[in-house]
Amino acid sequence: MGSLSPLWRLTASQASALMQQGRLSSEQYVHACLERIQAREPQVQAWAHLDPQAALAQAKACDAQPRRSPLHGIPVGLKDVIRSLDQPTRFNSPIYEQHQPNEDAHCMAVLRAKGAVLMGKLQTLEFACGGQFPPTRNPWDLQRTPGGSSSGSGAAVADGMVPLALGTQTGGSTIRPAAFCGAVGMKPTWGRIPFDGIKSFAAHLDTVGLFARSVDDLALLLGAYGLIEPSLPPVPPWPQLKLMVCRTPLWDQAEAPAQAAFDGLLERLRSAGVQLREMPWPQELAAINTWQDEVMQDGGRSAFLPEMLTAPDLLHADFKAKLANHLQLTPAGMRLALDRIAQARMAFETTMDDADAVISLSAPGPAPLGLQSQGMATFNRLWTALQVPCISLPLLWSPEGLPMGLQLIHRRYEDHRLIEVARTIEAALPQERHPWN
Amino acid sequence: MGSLSPLWRLTASQASALMQQGRLSSEQYVHACLERIQAREPQVQAWAHLDPQAALAQAKACDAQPRRSPLHGIPVGLKDVIRSLDQPTRFNSPIYEQHQPNEDAHCMAVLRAKGAVLMGKLQTLEFACGGQFPPTRNPWDLQRTPGGSSSGSGAAVADGMVPLALGTQTGGSTIRPAAFCGAVGMKPTWGRIPFDGIKSFAAHLDTVGLFARSVDDLALLLGAYGLIEPSLPPVPPWPQLKLMVCRTPLWDQAEAPAQAAFDGLLERLRSAGVQLREMPWPQELAAINTWQDEVMQDGGRSAFLPEMLTAPDLLHADFKAKLANHLQLTPAGMRLALDRIAQARMAFETTMDDADAVISLSAPGPAPLGLQSQGMATFNRLWTALQVPCISLPLLWSPEGLPMGLQLIHRRYEDHRLIEVARTIEAALPQERHPWN
Repeated sequence: MGSLSPLWRLTASQASALMQQGRLSSEQYVHACLERIQAREPQVQAWAHLDPQAALAQAKACDAQPRRSPLHGIPVGLKDVIRSLDQPTRFNSPIYEQHQPNEDAHCMAVLRAKGAVLMGKLQTLEFACGGQFPPTRNPWDLQRTPGGSSSGSGAAVADGMVPLALGTQTGGSTIRPAAFCGAVGMKPTWGRIPFDGIKSFAAHLDTVGLFARSVDDLALLLGAYGLIEPSLPPVPPWPQLKLMVCRTPLWDQAEAPAQAAFDGLLERLRSAGVQLREMPWPQELAAINTWQDEVMQDGGRSAFLPEMLTAPDLLHADFKAKLANHLQLTPAGMRLALDRIAQARMAFETTMDDADAVISLSAPGPAPLGLQSQGMATFNRLWTALQVPCISLPLLWSPEGLPMGLQLIHRRYEDHRLIEVARTIEAALPQERHPWN
Repeated sequence: MGSLSPLWRLTASQASALMQQGRLSSEQYVHACLERIQAREPQVQAWAHLDPQAALAQAKACDAQPRRSPLHGIPVGLKDVIRSLDQPTRFNSPIYEQHQPNEDAHCMAVLRAKGAVLMGKLQTLEFACGGQFPPTRNPWDLQRTPGGSSSGSGAAVADGMVPLALGTQTGGSTIRPAAFCGAVGMKPTWGRIPFDGIKSFAAHLDTVGLFARSVDDLALLLGAYGLIEPSLPPVPPWPQLKLMVCRTPLWDQAEAPAQAAFDGLLERLRSAGVQLREMPWPQELAAINTWQDEVMQDGGRSAFLPEMLTAPDLLHADFKAKLANHLQLTPAGMRLALDRIAQARMAFETTMDDADAVISLSAPGPAPLGLQSQGMATFNRLWTALQVPCISLPLLWSPEGLPMGLQLIHRRYEDHRLIEVARTIEAALPQERHPWN
């Protein structure tokens, strides 16, 4: 391996191929990632729990076994709202400071069965909801937020500490940190990866999120969950893609450099021969972010009832304020929000017509300065409400060189097709910018 | 308490009032329920786990504390797919034979915070899905199924072993056993009681279910979850109720005695002055049970992936066959099923118009003979798909004296209003039939 750059820079797919060829051991790869963590963690602070010896022991055990899947021996980080049977799960809450589950969440159980190494637990906003911020910093600029609530997942993967991580998204908690950190992030179709064993927030919205540094690596994760299925008809080759450009009526909330970078990318795509069409904004999506907020607030009131009953004093004041500050939601109002979302979903998927994907911004700009905000979920909440799959690719850059995400969106259950489209774009527009170069 | 009938016959609300007055202790009540269990369990076999000393210890601890809520000191049974931190949770699967969670599911954590006593774990169909049947028998006729998959919950509550129990419903797993056992059962609006900590099956459908012997007791449970809210405008008093009769196009699948009993009840209601209207079947509900089945099967394939990967040999052959025997579900097919269900939901709620509730059968007949079937979910699956609240009241009886349920249905989020309607009907048409008299 001497001729390669540091091993921690390998993507999971690259490392997996080398392991398959017997040219790399899990122990070597995990060891390299741990070295990267050791070098960077004092600044980035992505990890809520890390036990290097335990990770190495898992890696050695993997090396001693026959390979069970392409994920065998590959280290994975877990947002600290996802239960793990051998590592604490604390939700960034003092209520769970001593909490050690004795079961894996469904999403982790599958990865473990496939032979993945649980590297550690990654920082999160309190309960992935609000209140206590994590200490995590953006690896591109330590004065900036990595975004959240899956803050550690975005920062650790983008910074080369671990090739893969899981997070969650109820508003914008996966796509936003992926965009701010320059990771490749995915929010799959709602419900396809069960939320079993993850702290819930709002059942209609809660989604497992995936973090990686390449689209191949997203496919590796999605495949572990049995969600890589034949895409028929096949996705057209570059540059025959047909993309629909969705600026949404919220476009004026995007910062000027983000708009400019987006327009610049459209120009590159157009020059290459990609067919672009502006998506007419369906009337049915009029107040989609408001409806998403109503559904999320209603969920929060139920989800955190046990903590409100047993340990209200240990909940952050801002968390409690967020729960208390609910809209006056009536049964009729909830039905209206949910039904309008259902109609919006159908309208969006119809409007998408024969496009190979919809493209938009992942976030209104680059990561803002400071750690007491995680940025806006303006361009995420609508897609979360619609339950459609989204991928963020680090293809847009601010004038100061900070990553901003290009968001690709598809119809529900077209997760694999969306990955194929993202892979095609990634291959045509490779980007090699990382925090380390 | 000497003048009362056996204490185990008290409903939770009655016992709670006596406890509040200092006339009954939790220990006395739990002890009485344990006596009933001791007498009947050899025949009924409702319990998957029972530790009488642990239950009594909890009761004594409750008696030593200030009352925390109306549920304080009240024993509750849990379907054995709902995790409990101090009792095993086995899912009726040998994979989990030694499984002792160290956390409560959300629904149990709330009850515990309110002071309830966890009486024990109740028998279930394997993973509440299929395969291994529970040994539980119908308390009205030991040769018959209690229904399922919440078999133990229905049987134990109806038989006086415990006043309250929780179950789940993904197809008909709460309303069906409530009907077959003569319990008062409720499937609340989807998502209002988080499914956190319960083994999931199909995310779009999975719902926590409630079992009791009176509507007041359902209200006690619903109140614990913060779901008792003002019903404005108030529910009209008896007999000014307006009910809509929904036979569904599946009516010919109801057995003749069930149809006759239903018609007999309609006649009683009409004679009393209740306004009855036949509900026109909205075109949008055409194939609702088929769509429910597609969504359920798609869920099952993901939900049980960890068990399929790690312990396929310990899954019942019928369980595996059920998972493998899936329809050829495509992305477009899944979207169609989900969108048609969304449209059906709106159509049903519009058609309901100003009725105070919709009424139908809870099941196509009384509990069938034998323990290797749990009866049909014909009249449940559509309402589960619609995510609307349903209550089963034991107001219909077969010629041989077996209970059949009257099902009341309302719009989403009208759980409290539905309880008020059920309470009004229960008060006007009291029924005192129990397995013990």
